[in-house]
Amino acid sequence: MKNLGEFGLIEQLAEMVKKAGQNPPELILGIGDDTAVWQSKGITLTTTDSLVEGVHFNLNVTSWQELGWKALATSLSDIAAMGGQANYALVALSLPEETEVEDVLSLYTGILELANKHGVTIAGGNISRALHVSLNVTVSGNATKGNILTRSAAVAGDKIAISGHPGTAAAGMETLKSRFNLKAEESAALKKAFLCPEPRLSLGQLLVKNGVKAAIDTSDGLTADLAHICHASGVSARVEIESLPLHPTVKASFPNRYLTLALSGGEDYELLFTAPSDTIEKIAASTDCPITIIGEITAGAAGEIKLVDGQGQPYKTLKAGWDHFANR
Amino acid sequence: MKNLGEFGLIEQLAEMVKKAGQNPPELILGIGDDTAVWQSKGITLTTTDSLVEGVHFNLNVTSWQELGWKALATSLSDIAAMGGQANYALVALSLPEETEVEDVLSLYTGILELANKHGVTIAGGNISRALHVSLNVTVSGNATKGNILTRSAAVAGDKIAISGHPGTAAAGMETLKSRFNLKAEESAALKKAFLCPEPRLSLGQLLVKNGVKAAIDTSDGLTADLAHICHASGVSARVEIESLPLHPTVKASFPNRYLTLALSGGEDYELLFTAPSDTIEKIAASTDCPITIIGEITAGAAGEIKLVDGQGQPYKTLKAGWDHFANR
Repeated sequence: MKNLGEFGLIEQLAEMVKKAGQNPPELILGIGDDTAVWQSKGITLTTTDSLVEGVHFNLNVTSWQELGWKALATSLSDIAAMGGQANYALVALSLPEETEVEDVLSLYTGILELANKHGVTIAGGNISRALHVSLNVTVSGNATKGNILTRSAAVAGDKIAISGHPGTAAAGMETLKSRFNLKAEESAALKKAFLCPEPRLSLGQLLVKNGVKAAIDTSDGLTADLAHICHASGVSARVEIESLPLHPTVKASFPNRYLTLALSGGEDYELLFTAPSDTIEKIAASTDCPITIIGEITAGAAGEIKLVDGQGQPYKTLKAGWDHFANR
Repeated sequence: MKNLGEFGLIEQLAEMVKKAGQNPPELILGIGDDTAVWQSKGITLTTTDSLVEGVHFNLNVTSWQELGWKALATSLSDIAAMGGQANYALVALSLPEETEVEDVLSLYTGILELANKHGVTIAGGNISRALHVSLNVTVSGNATKGNILTRSAAVAGDKIAISGHPGTAAAGMETLKSRFNLKAEESAALKKAFLCPEPRLSLGQLLVKNGVKAAIDTSDGLTADLAHICHASGVSARVEIESLPLHPTVKASFPNRYLTLALSGGEDYELLFTAPSDTIEKIAASTDCPITIIGEITAGAAGEIKLVDGQGQPYKTLKAGWDHFANR
């Protein structure tokens, strides 16, 4: 990359973004000036997320293209969790000097693949030198006032629902680390869940449309993220562990640990939300995404989560999810 | 930090932001949900910038509080270069596990000090574990359509003006590295220019008000940033090196290198802009910030910069400024 330089690289990336057809009428200035500029609309939702080499990814098992996808996906998932429309992304790259230009272009291929899927425009960013690779993606979206999902709107009596299959990404990460040797076809879905998560933007908007008020995306792990909702809403929760919609391969391949993976495994980027049961049933009937009721919001100490078995008896509390500095 | 954990730390930081009085009526949701949410206004300006340990700062000579100030300043400076109003910041921190909580709080003290000075609210962010410290700050601002400064609006015949004293930050960095031993009182201004730059937000807005159309902030170095304007505008430039407004301490302390520092030293975060000379004189008369005409935009090859001496004779072209990967 040394030969091309920072500015040469930015020019190549800007060209790539242009060729990908990213030029919506609301964008006033994209890559190339001091800031990105766009026409504002409704209320603005903005989120920023970082992926750090050695902490969130390992380039021995993650391709640059997958890394680009995932870096954007984690931020898009936050917009999904608010029920918003994602519009623009700013990509800040920190790269070692010896990084190959073609790897950076592959990274952008992954970013643009996901961006185009959701109508998101790469409007700017930054490139810095660093010892290790890290990416920070900021996404800006919009919604109309009053029509967003928050962590603080859960009420006692709401059912708790989740999309997808919790623990699948964590199982994928463990498979990639080769702690387990699964057959290629079995492990593909798990690896994909970890490497290329699908941000649930359409689902988030469907929740808003159906009057859902409380949601979060499962980045830290099911119990940790549910605890975030309960803390913010001042409520407790009861989760029926036998209702958890486990991925069949996770259940079969991790017979002693599938519950831990489902309850504490992070990075699924599914939506966890609360609503009356008829609302949840209506939503489940109008999306291809699997939606499962896994418990109920209860009155009680803010943030307390009770796990119960099939007979409604208390089940041992498990590790409370991914925290970057504690509980490890 | 391990004992407090990511979520405990976020709670402390959110409390600190709240206590600093950061709760404007347009902010719908600040720190604590999946995204920040605010009421949109006019056109949105968004920028993201990273500071990486060992590349942009060294904690042996930079305090955590200064680091916080500078991380926000670099992004605010981009909004200043567009002539906008800065409104919200999102702070993404990557921190080694052994980072002391009090250091992170000091960092936020620096961030909040500068934020409050400019009416900017810390509306969200992210905390990740990493091997080295790095900060990414995204700032969102606003302007009204048509009333922004861009890199692409310079026209032949415009004079080129700069605020402040180019090369001061670079001289400060060299002083901090102890390559030069200056007296404390002499070096203080240089060090401050490097450690705690003042983003020129008021000046940017003053430029817009006076009809200026083209500007950039000097983060890469005077010639490199002027080249960005010339490339984007399809014009050339002539810079009179004897007009450069050098800081007297820089000229006195770096007798053989002051020109290199002024032309190629980065991180001044001053504004470089082009306009008719009467406009520049009017602006200079209505601000306390020193404004100096240093040359002229000319018709010619896009991006070409000629340095001329006091007799108008060609002067040797110098290093073209800070590029993260090339020219070093």
